[in-house]
Amino acid sequence: MSELVGNMLVAQSGGPTAVINASVAGVIQEAGKHPEVIEEIYGGLNGILGILNEELIDLNDEKSRAIEGLKHTPAAALGTCRYKIDFKKKPNQAAKDMDRLFDVFMGHNIRYFFYAGGNDSQDTANKIHDEALKRKFEMRVIGVPKTIDNDLPHTDHCPGFGSVIKYNAATVMEVAADVSSMATDDGACCIVEVMGRGAGWIAAGTVLAKRSPNDAPHIILLPEIPFDEAAFLAKVKMVVDELKYCIVVVGEGLKDASGKEFAADTTKLDSFGHPVLSGAAERLAEIVSAKLGTKTRTIKLGYAQRAAAHFASETDVEEATACGSAAVRAALDGKSGFMVKLVRLSSNPYRWTTDLEDLNHIANVEHLIPRDWISADGFLPNEKFVEYAQPLIEGELHLPTERGLPKFVTLEKNRVEKKLPSRS
Amino acid sequence: MSELVGNMLVAQSGGPTAVINASVAGVIQEAGKHPEVIEEIYGGLNGILGILNEELIDLNDEKSRAIEGLKHTPAAALGTCRYKIDFKKKPNQAAKDMDRLFDVFMGHNIRYFFYAGGNDSQDTANKIHDEALKRKFEMRVIGVPKTIDNDLPHTDHCPGFGSVIKYNAATVMEVAADVSSMATDDGACCIVEVMGRGAGWIAAGTVLAKRSPNDAPHIILLPEIPFDEAAFLAKVKMVVDELKYCIVVVGEGLKDASGKEFAADTTKLDSFGHPVLSGAAERLAEIVSAKLGTKTRTIKLGYAQRAAAHFASETDVEEATACGSAAVRAALDGKSGFMVKLVRLSSNPYRWTTDLEDLNHIANVEHLIPRDWISADGFLPNEKFVEYAQPLIEGELHLPTERGLPKFVTLEKNRVEKKLPSRS
Repeated sequence: MSELVGNMLVAQSGGPTAVINASVAGVIQEAGKHPEVIEEIYGGLNGILGILNEELIDLNDEKSRAIEGLKHTPAAALGTCRYKIDFKKKPNQAAKDMDRLFDVFMGHNIRYFFYAGGNDSQDTANKIHDEALKRKFEMRVIGVPKTIDNDLPHTDHCPGFGSVIKYNAATVMEVAADVSSMATDDGACCIVEVMGRGAGWIAAGTVLAKRSPNDAPHIILLPEIPFDEAAFLAKVKMVVDELKYCIVVVGEGLKDASGKEFAADTTKLDSFGHPVLSGAAERLAEIVSAKLGTKTRTIKLGYAQRAAAHFASETDVEEATACGSAAVRAALDGKSGFMVKLVRLSSNPYRWTTDLEDLNHIANVEHLIPRDWISADGFLPNEKFVEYAQPLIEGELHLPTERGLPKFVTLEKNRVEKKLPSRS
Repeated sequence: MSELVGNMLVAQSGGPTAVINASVAGVIQEAGKHPEVIEEIYGGLNGILGILNEELIDLNDEKSRAIEGLKHTPAAALGTCRYKIDFKKKPNQAAKDMDRLFDVFMGHNIRYFFYAGGNDSQDTANKIHDEALKRKFEMRVIGVPKTIDNDLPHTDHCPGFGSVIKYNAATVMEVAADVSSMATDDGACCIVEVMGRGAGWIAAGTVLAKRSPNDAPHIILLPEIPFDEAAFLAKVKMVVDELKYCIVVVGEGLKDASGKEFAADTTKLDSFGHPVLSGAAERLAEIVSAKLGTKTRTIKLGYAQRAAAHFASETDVEEATACGSAAVRAALDGKSGFMVKLVRLSSNPYRWTTDLEDLNHIANVEHLIPRDWISADGFLPNEKFVEYAQPLIEGELHLPTERGLPKFVTLEKNRVEKKLPSRS
């Protein structure tokens, strides 16, 4: 293998997580060990969007302490975007964008490009890899997996997922203590709405709070299982009759039998054209109140769940960091057009490693919960899911605090001098 | 002072908090030191409601480890209720209830009664104290303050408040990191709805996340300040124009200029006749989206905020425990008809002690944020509030965990044998 000497660029894309910065830290720390090959370590601000604007920062200028601190700092320290290079819908803009990207890559001699993100971001990484081949520009492109939704295929799970379900499960445990302690004869129901879009992984993960049969959550409504109002109400009634209270967790992307999203507001689309989801818990609460007369409250954790570094999973942080390092090692090994994936060696004791998957196998495939990981009645994931998910929440970070609140790092973000004319 | 020898009863009432169990632990641990006076240590299940049903448990039967563990266990370990003895609206039921309560007190020789709760619960404690005098039943009744809302008068602050604002401020800090890292030119707004009913203390507490001028929260809508839509929208626009994102915190009890609750659903009342509040964030999000065209998301922390023991304030836990012990010491000292209050000796360094306040001065008085603790434009609490609130969030608990989640205690709840006929 001939050594490819040049500069490196890392960027983040899509919705942030509690540990996507740990992946960036893994990339930077690993890259820093190879100065004879990787000469400069740059970060692209706001993903592809910032790279198009030639907004690069010099990550070798950051304090080592700050890079290490990224491992407990939530959100995207480099900034992120949801910008898509869409050859199908906007072929002219996409071609123009691709030209500009390669102007930036060539202008700054970027030979190593690491992109941390979910499905759409891996698709972008794949397109860049293809273009580099087409343009005969020698470059190594490796995707780093990231998504709380855990819906990337081929990887055992996604960095970000363990932390979101750890926080959500702790929240369900705490809320259940609260609601059950207030539950007198009238009964009480609390509905917790969680993220995950069309995949139920995040909702399912709250089952880890259930440590004995009567523990919450009592019902988990997964997007994988069509919502059946009558069966749901019967189950809520049964639980309230028995325990005086019922904790329901609902995935935001819950669908009815026709496949229509239960709470989709189709008048709002995000920039990838996906409908904006909101309000599943509120809609369910209206149904429970009206049909059962049970006092019902809602919780919508929203972005709080994916940013909750204060209760992140240590396992998740380690894996996220390892995915970043593995990406750099793969690139140095001559690989391009791959995504790092997590491979489980055993669940108990939990052992894992990283490997690579062809980006062509990743992009735009949505990985859902297998039906046989869900109870027959569809209201709870079963022991197969628990075996899978339990190791991912183990371990607590020792988060530094300052005056009672988490102490997160912010980067200096010293800009790399621009070499190109402004983007037209 | 002649010693009053007899049994003790402690109960919890109203909405739970992360630290109300710490107060109960304080009561139990202090009472346990005086077996020559306090012979049995009983807990009443579900507040007054359980006591009416003679549902008492023997707290001396619980493991010491479990009592200590109450200090990091959220919600009401003894159960709680919102039952009110209402001589005004239901005089016959109230008279009957009071007779029954004293049947239970006399039947079990309850000479010490400690009731942990907020305004309504202190009112109940006061009525029991008055009745004991009227009935010439020698008994010592002390209220233990508890409310996340921080709206009790005379006490510097309420146990439960420090923990809720610590968790909420950390959440705002994390959500701000998330939203700002996604904020590209279009701008983004996130609205976080917090509890507190008519008082803005909880909403105001999130200002502690603001450690430099551009930090979130950027706008806090307090129930103390009438909502002015035009001024609010202008402020959101200004912040988004400058920073590309804006984090808004709204207290659930926000009111308009006419005093009408912004998001009150007057069709639903709780058992004290207060309207059920919900949806302030959703309503604001609709306004921001429609009028400014800014992408807006909402978070409704709901019960999660008051149950969040996993990020409770160590200061709060210490104070809650101390209020419990102080209640017992006051009663042993012959006092009755008082609530324990927290007295601040200095803010920096933070020093405090406990004292007593006549229950007649407490019940049904709502303590709001002074106007001169709020900025001139009404959108943020000022440095006076920060000086007040900062010490209350200091210190982190060392929460035990088990398989990645908090390990909370549950009590054995061995029942005290009933001596009375069932409640008619």
